[in-house]
Amino acid sequence: MNILILGGGGVVGQKLAQSLAQRGHLRGQEITRMTLADIVDPVPVEAPFPVETTTCDIADPASVATSIDADTDVIYLLAAIVSAHAEEDFDTGYRINMTGTINVLERARALGTKPVVVFTSSLAVFGGEVPDPITDHTFLNPQTSYGTQKAIGELLVNDYSRKGFIDGRGFRLPTISVRPGKPNRAASSFMSSILREPLNGQEAICPVEDDFLHYYLSPRKCVENLIKGAELAEDDVGMNRNMMMPGKIWSVRQLIDAMTAVAGAEPAKLIRFEAQPDIQRIVKGWRYDQAPEKSLKLGLTADDSFEDNIRYYLEDDKPAA
Amino acid sequence: MNILILGGGGVVGQKLAQSLAQRGHLRGQEITRMTLADIVDPVPVEAPFPVETTTCDIADPASVATSIDADTDVIYLLAAIVSAHAEEDFDTGYRINMTGTINVLERARALGTKPVVVFTSSLAVFGGEVPDPITDHTFLNPQTSYGTQKAIGELLVNDYSRKGFIDGRGFRLPTISVRPGKPNRAASSFMSSILREPLNGQEAICPVEDDFLHYYLSPRKCVENLIKGAELAEDDVGMNRNMMMPGKIWSVRQLIDAMTAVAGAEPAKLIRFEAQPDIQRIVKGWRYDQAPEKSLKLGLTADDSFEDNIRYYLEDDKPAA
Repeated sequence: MNILILGGGGVVGQKLAQSLAQRGHLRGQEITRMTLADIVDPVPVEAPFPVETTTCDIADPASVATSIDADTDVIYLLAAIVSAHAEEDFDTGYRINMTGTINVLERARALGTKPVVVFTSSLAVFGGEVPDPITDHTFLNPQTSYGTQKAIGELLVNDYSRKGFIDGRGFRLPTISVRPGKPNRAASSFMSSILREPLNGQEAICPVEDDFLHYYLSPRKCVENLIKGAELAEDDVGMNRNMMMPGKIWSVRQLIDAMTAVAGAEPAKLIRFEAQPDIQRIVKGWRYDQAPEKSLKLGLTADDSFEDNIRYYLEDDKPAA
Repeated sequence: MNILILGGGGVVGQKLAQSLAQRGHLRGQEITRMTLADIVDPVPVEAPFPVETTTCDIADPASVATSIDADTDVIYLLAAIVSAHAEEDFDTGYRINMTGTINVLERARALGTKPVVVFTSSLAVFGGEVPDPITDHTFLNPQTSYGTQKAIGELLVNDYSRKGFIDGRGFRLPTISVRPGKPNRAASSFMSSILREPLNGQEAICPVEDDFLHYYLSPRKCVENLIKGAELAEDDVGMNRNMMMPGKIWSVRQLIDAMTAVAGAEPAKLIRFEAQPDIQRIVKGWRYDQAPEKSLKLGLTADDSFEDNIRYYLEDDKPAA
């Protein structure tokens, strides 16, 4: 079992790699090799099998060709330009998120080896005038270029799978929180930073009101689901290879209260509310009322409480003082 | 008002051009120029204003750039590789139907003139495990590459419209019948030829059973709707620029009975039923139970009876004996 993680330098890619390294097997087979590829050479992970790190620009077909071999069994396609970045830079968003996805699928098709491709989509594919709750059969009407690019990726994963070029499965990620590391250009960046920075003793700005509702999943659960996602039987995935990954709806107030319940009253005092219309315009177009029936039926799971999400951050990610 | 019809040599493109020529105005303005562009130089139409014909390969950005000027007000994007052709030739399908659409949208974006773009999608965007009836909020799960390419076009029309690069509106065409001319490589080709050929005294093969249900519209109504579609106010189109064009559900038996009612008993005797599994596999994956609430509300209409469709063919298209 030879695994490639495109976007292997990112938060989810690194955690996925660590989890696969600890696990040692996937889809009933021992893992014999893993490659982490990203636009900058990823941090390697320790594993009982060889782990290679490499740079790969998915927008460049030649670069993709050097990363995906005929003996690549499973490809995690996590690499992407995030939402606010894709909204600001139209060309780069399409180049990475659409053309990059096409390059990966085309490489798999050219090899003729039908690898498993696990594609990460996003709840940003939903928007517009569709009624709540969002079901497995709800129209994708993204209100960002990022969401559009992910929706196109979903369609391509379906078509390349239907044609037998890949065995694809796509998962629309809820917003991942508490995400470790630094703020990024995702419009959802604050949904981690209002917790992470205060837990690390730093100030944070919340650009929305505290009754803002959204749909969340911890990094730990996300990785569990991505591993389960690779292991689903092809026949069970059905005619739409893409599905919402389970999450839970919480308000900003509930996130903060969970932090206080786990870590005491001090961190919450470091949050300053400061409305940011640009961010609000994007995130208020997202849809949080999700009914991910299919993925729940297939055994994927959400967190039990946001207190768990806070604890996972403290256990897995909080920098040593 | 300067109009460009990409796909102006096709059946719908030609009829649209003739109708616009007779009409003389669009969106409240006098038509001052019309260009018919296609992969081979289209047949010109008579009009009280200048009509240019030109070759354009939409897969080639330079070719697209010569067809779309800063003074192009309305672009009808009808050019496409049809369903069975796109299913057989994966690369050509994506090159014309996806990359071609991108080239047109990118040209409009580069000009910065925000033309009205009327995009023709297809009911082939629907399929898979979604429940009936198909509504304006039903998930697009195409089961052909053609449907996938059209669904991607819809997403792009939405995103380029949302960004203000175009004023887009897309219409998913029912199967157009009775389509004049010759059979083509569309899987739906027989849905006209089992009527057209017998009406012209020729034999025809029906590759499905006579209880096969499908969703139809006459060319005359389709053109009416495409003109109304260009004239809709941008605000009325809403956050999803794409909608099903109204049609009606009929069985093959009902089509044949309508032909007999209008043209007598002889034509039906020229139809031979001969099952074709390749065609059946495609057309049985299409969804006919459509509830096009939005387009009906916006004033688009279907035919009253299939007898009308037969009469329109006899009036508009039947070759002189």
